[in-house]
Amino acid sequence: MARTIQGVLLGSPEIMRDYIDAFERTAPYIQLALPQDVTDPDAVTLALAWDPGADDFRPYPNLRLVSSIAAGVNGILASPSLPRDVPLMRIAGESQAQMMAGFVTWHVLWHHRRFGDYLAHQRLAHWERLPKRYAHEIRIGLLGAGKMGSATARALKALDYDVVIYSRSGRNLPEGVAGFSGDGGLDRLAARSEILINLLPLTPETRDILNAELFSRLPSGAVLIHVGRGEHLVEADLLAALDSGQLSAASLDVFAIEPLPTDHVFWHHDRIVVTPHDACDSTPTQVAQEVAEAMARLDGGQLPISVVDRHAGY
Amino acid sequence: MARTIQGVLLGSPEIMRDYIDAFERTAPYIQLALPQDVTDPDAVTLALAWDPGADDFRPYPNLRLVSSIAAGVNGILASPSLPRDVPLMRIAGESQAQMMAGFVTWHVLWHHRRFGDYLAHQRLAHWERLPKRYAHEIRIGLLGAGKMGSATARALKALDYDVVIYSRSGRNLPEGVAGFSGDGGLDRLAARSEILINLLPLTPETRDILNAELFSRLPSGAVLIHVGRGEHLVEADLLAALDSGQLSAASLDVFAIEPLPTDHVFWHHDRIVVTPHDACDSTPTQVAQEVAEAMARLDGGQLPISVVDRHAGY
Repeated sequence: MARTIQGVLLGSPEIMRDYIDAFERTAPYIQLALPQDVTDPDAVTLALAWDPGADDFRPYPNLRLVSSIAAGVNGILASPSLPRDVPLMRIAGESQAQMMAGFVTWHVLWHHRRFGDYLAHQRLAHWERLPKRYAHEIRIGLLGAGKMGSATARALKALDYDVVIYSRSGRNLPEGVAGFSGDGGLDRLAARSEILINLLPLTPETRDILNAELFSRLPSGAVLIHVGRGEHLVEADLLAALDSGQLSAASLDVFAIEPLPTDHVFWHHDRIVVTPHDACDSTPTQVAQEVAEAMARLDGGQLPISVVDRHAGY
Repeated sequence: MARTIQGVLLGSPEIMRDYIDAFERTAPYIQLALPQDVTDPDAVTLALAWDPGADDFRPYPNLRLVSSIAAGVNGILASPSLPRDVPLMRIAGESQAQMMAGFVTWHVLWHHRRFGDYLAHQRLAHWERLPKRYAHEIRIGLLGAGKMGSATARALKALDYDVVIYSRSGRNLPEGVAGFSGDGGLDRLAARSEILINLLPLTPETRDILNAELFSRLPSGAVLIHVGRGEHLVEADLLAALDSGQLSAASLDVFAIEPLPTDHVFWHHDRIVVTPHDACDSTPTQVAQEVAEAMARLDGGQLPISVVDRHAGY
């Protein structure tokens, strides 16, 4: 690979700068720069982006690939200057999916096995065994059958949980996991989900999907684990469902406004666990590897493996 | 099964009484009684026991089976009146092993993903992403390859952790998990275990196995997850290893004295998570099922499936 590839980093410089070193180590023939350091915009064929501004893509007429630095692309699709005909890809590594699976599994066990109560009891030096149910008795509904949803379902199956998945197509499910799709499928999944996990991509169809109507279809006292995107959740509906007891608890990693404002009620709600959109990360090295592979595929006339279907939105 | 079987419950009545109902529902031809309610000790052929007294077995000359109500039998083996020639069994159900696997998995994720820091940050409404490592980079050593050890190893493998097992025989390991045995094996396992999980049975050989020497062989800053028996751990050695930084944290579910005394230093140590010997439970129904099956096997001339090897001690 003798040829040099010029790339531009679109998005907040604090986030994007980390990728310059990673590409230098992993794929040194790809030279990345922040927009102010680009001397010849016509030579730029790669854009690596995260929440780019409205006009950020405009100076670069010869892009061959736009890539997210993570699994989500909704911020990129929201930029009006994103060129229509250039392949857009996201990062979707197996290690990242396993990281998500571990994060979600921790929250499932936290709620199922009441670890919050154990920690509270420890502070009081209070020895109290808690009633227990077997994992195979706990019915879990998982929204989203992508790499992360599938890895999460496999991990929960390995722990003997009773898992089903809802997805747009209802296909490509891990072995032994039943799938639901369509509006009727979402209702059927909700009706049997004591723990509801959201791992959907954000699209016009999935925005606000975690709302009062869906919560009302869950068994009373259900738990929500939300690791999708902030815009999936109608925050007021979650608080009302917790107040009424329809939901007993929630784990939230993503929010409509991030960082979550310090005065937001979620921080101090005693039945909400808040984490800072940190369920999983693609490392800069992984991004460099996947983008370099995608550029090579383009040279060979193939689309990137994790190319985004713009109609579906992910 | 027309014949009636008379059984006696040996151990504290608060614990043992629960089993009378469970057997009545599950195997009504087995009639259990507390010692004071036994009218004809010669007719008693089954003893269900948990920490029995020194003389508790003496009144019953015709026992055909002694069973624990859980996986541990060290308390039963400690009773001098335990008849030498009667089969002794323990409860070793798959659901119980899965329950242990979930409990241990929660603690692995707690330490690896620093969930204690997330919870502390939430109390301060502090948004801070944490450095992350992939699960496959985390080297875990698991002591014990019984049903619980195997189920735990499988669950951690499903989450992509790098798991090896130490056991007496080094055999019967889950697929894809390397095994070590013997003294040299224990040292080799320790040298590569950032997280050390103890699931060994308590025997004369394993008593005090979690000691300063073993801790010194772990990588600096390792984590101990201890769900075996209290007598496996030299408590002073653990505290010294935490003080020196050789160990960074510990999760303890079992203790030399249980309930853990309220003034014990473990309760208030900021790098120890204490739970009340609650990692997993056999339900009374499961005990009734396994004991009934074992009695049927004895009628057919077979030993119980989970018969204890008294020489090995488990």
